[in-house]
Amino acid sequence: MDLEFIRELITPAKTKIVMLVMDGLGGLPLEPGGKTELETAQTPNLDALAALSALGLSEPVGPGITVESGPGHLALFGYDPLQDRIGRGVLEAVGVGIDLDPSDIAVRGNYCTVDAAGVVTDRRAGRIKNEISRPLSSLLSTKIEDVEIKVETVKEHRLAIVLHGPGLSAEVSDSDPLKNGYRPLPLKALTAQAEKTARVLNQFVEHARQVMAGYEPKPPANMLLLRGFDKYPNFPSFPEMFGVRAAAIAVYPTYRGIAKLVGMQVLPVEGGATADEFATLEQYWNDFDFFYLHVKETDLAGEDGDFARKVSIIETVDRLLPRLMALQPDVVVVSGDHSTPAALKGHSWHPVPTLIYGKSVRADGLAEFGERACSRGSLGLMPARNIMPIALANAGRIIKWGG
Amino acid sequence: MDLEFIRELITPAKTKIVMLVMDGLGGLPLEPGGKTELETAQTPNLDALAALSALGLSEPVGPGITVESGPGHLALFGYDPLQDRIGRGVLEAVGVGIDLDPSDIAVRGNYCTVDAAGVVTDRRAGRIKNEISRPLSSLLSTKIEDVEIKVETVKEHRLAIVLHGPGLSAEVSDSDPLKNGYRPLPLKALTAQAEKTARVLNQFVEHARQVMAGYEPKPPANMLLLRGFDKYPNFPSFPEMFGVRAAAIAVYPTYRGIAKLVGMQVLPVEGGATADEFATLEQYWNDFDFFYLHVKETDLAGEDGDFARKVSIIETVDRLLPRLMALQPDVVVVSGDHSTPAALKGHSWHPVPTLIYGKSVRADGLAEFGERACSRGSLGLMPARNIMPIALANAGRIIKWGG
Repeated sequence: MDLEFIRELITPAKTKIVMLVMDGLGGLPLEPGGKTELETAQTPNLDALAALSALGLSEPVGPGITVESGPGHLALFGYDPLQDRIGRGVLEAVGVGIDLDPSDIAVRGNYCTVDAAGVVTDRRAGRIKNEISRPLSSLLSTKIEDVEIKVETVKEHRLAIVLHGPGLSAEVSDSDPLKNGYRPLPLKALTAQAEKTARVLNQFVEHARQVMAGYEPKPPANMLLLRGFDKYPNFPSFPEMFGVRAAAIAVYPTYRGIAKLVGMQVLPVEGGATADEFATLEQYWNDFDFFYLHVKETDLAGEDGDFARKVSIIETVDRLLPRLMALQPDVVVVSGDHSTPAALKGHSWHPVPTLIYGKSVRADGLAEFGERACSRGSLGLMPARNIMPIALANAGRIIKWGG
Repeated sequence: MDLEFIRELITPAKTKIVMLVMDGLGGLPLEPGGKTELETAQTPNLDALAALSALGLSEPVGPGITVESGPGHLALFGYDPLQDRIGRGVLEAVGVGIDLDPSDIAVRGNYCTVDAAGVVTDRRAGRIKNEISRPLSSLLSTKIEDVEIKVETVKEHRLAIVLHGPGLSAEVSDSDPLKNGYRPLPLKALTAQAEKTARVLNQFVEHARQVMAGYEPKPPANMLLLRGFDKYPNFPSFPEMFGVRAAAIAVYPTYRGIAKLVGMQVLPVEGGATADEFATLEQYWNDFDFFYLHVKETDLAGEDGDFARKVSIIETVDRLLPRLMALQPDVVVVSGDHSTPAALKGHSWHPVPTLIYGKSVRADGLAEFGERACSRGSLGLMPARNIMPIALANAGRIIKWGG
């Protein structure tokens, strides 16, 4: 079922949908036969909501596939992540908070070390520390011809670089030789349209080299390698496709960026706590039909291998849930963009517990929100991109199809 | 999700996966409300493993579709059987133990009866008995020009014929008129490259006719019909695709043949019993990362309609399971290539009970391996080709995907 098919069936309605995404929600027990983080958490409010909901387990891309946040969120938003892809350069740029325009070009960069002959001796500049990398990057941002160039450290040697200006193209070859022992390659235009971009980039690399050469104390990095030139992806717009005024409530830049890429309005959140996100939801309740509310800390705790902290964050969200329900949303989705079991200290392929609540939902009567309860739910094991059509249907926003 | 997508995410690991395939595992109760063969069997070891596993029901091709062993196994090995097909000629040839080379041509043949005018009066030669068919076939094997021709009886009138030699092509028209009352058609080259093959085959048919004419006592067959010319299929190699050193442990030629076709190394089994297969597993444990272990007798009992024997074979496998687990595999899959309910005395479309065990599996906590327990499992009702990606993920062999 593709998005065009659904788009043709969309009808207006005065209903409101909230999609509450706990990042990396799915988990694993620490001991065989034990409970997961979500199963361990005391969640009376989620459990009560589950009793009135249809439950299931969602897979972002497919069986056995572990995803990053980008494809995980695209699937929750109803897209097919194998079809609609966010380039890594764009995702890293939005992740460090660079605001992208549709005509901008995003590039992934590395700090590296070259010897006197210009040969790369370390493609990662000894994994240069963030404390050195960050201030260095801020000095590299510049303007060449009429092109603004922003440089931000993603982590250590990894950089997000964004070009903003007229007449840019992503059709430029990489400079990264991908191995030590080689010189950086000149950046070459792959089409006539890209000549300006290649010229500006080559000047930028020389500018960066000079800045690093003059920097004191001498940093471990003395050169840049560029690879992966991305344009802003041209997705079908979420609000147009689904006929909703859509708002995003997220604190972390990556999620604000992904929401913006699909056309959601990104709302300001005063303060960085989850409770502040719920306050934003209350504040803007009358202005939108669809709210994406993102909780990051579940994933961070999972990545840290901190089972107890992940449990505690889930419990915090549970205590905030009555504020959401008090707004009387027509449809509520609670899910995650992927699993991040504390036991694995990272993202995983395990299907994600998912709940869809609404007045017309055929509730499973399972009064527990947890992995094993969800595996018994009527939504079954489903692709995450099924969630949006079901939510829209329950919100009275999909008309009957005659064939 | 296609195989190319998964191939790009494969990463090396020092983990071991065992796929234990009980042929025709799925069954049916003999009485309404009764238990299936697997549910009837006393399987304490499989039940204990199930408690630590994710369970589900797998479908080789799709709902309602009953498969032969070829597509059933291809699906278990991660292929899409609708995409990657083994020609019936090739499958029958490997099934009777003919070792195929990639340049060989496999042909399906029938013994038939023709009248004095050469018109086919019985396309199946009265379903000539195996005891007559087998010795006759061994006399038909010959060499024409530089082409070796091997003929083996598959069953009764059905023959597997393999051509081995230089410059062969499968682009040859059939000789089988498909109805009684017609003369066999001359075999014609459909392309210039196939002229030698057609010439050799026409000589071979004449040779066969003469052998049968001179045979005493006069067999019910006096002519051959040929149809379906297959080349050795060109599948993506299983070991390359999934980055594993893959070994097959099987006694019956069909399964050894299919495993060889996908690029697995087929191990010798001393003796033909299931226990001997487990001994082979132990013997070669250090040399491979992936083991396919095939138990045929479950299917044979099902085909015979022998419920009690199928139960007893499952119990035998259960008693051998501790030897497998003692090797400390990282991931174990237990499944079948299709169902063969004794109640139906043949293959069926019913989904196959499937278990995936591993340290990072999110266990369902269902301490029973049976059709109904599996229908409540978190793997749900799934295409059999989902099993490999999940097994590989649990073995730490699939990296995170960023989009």
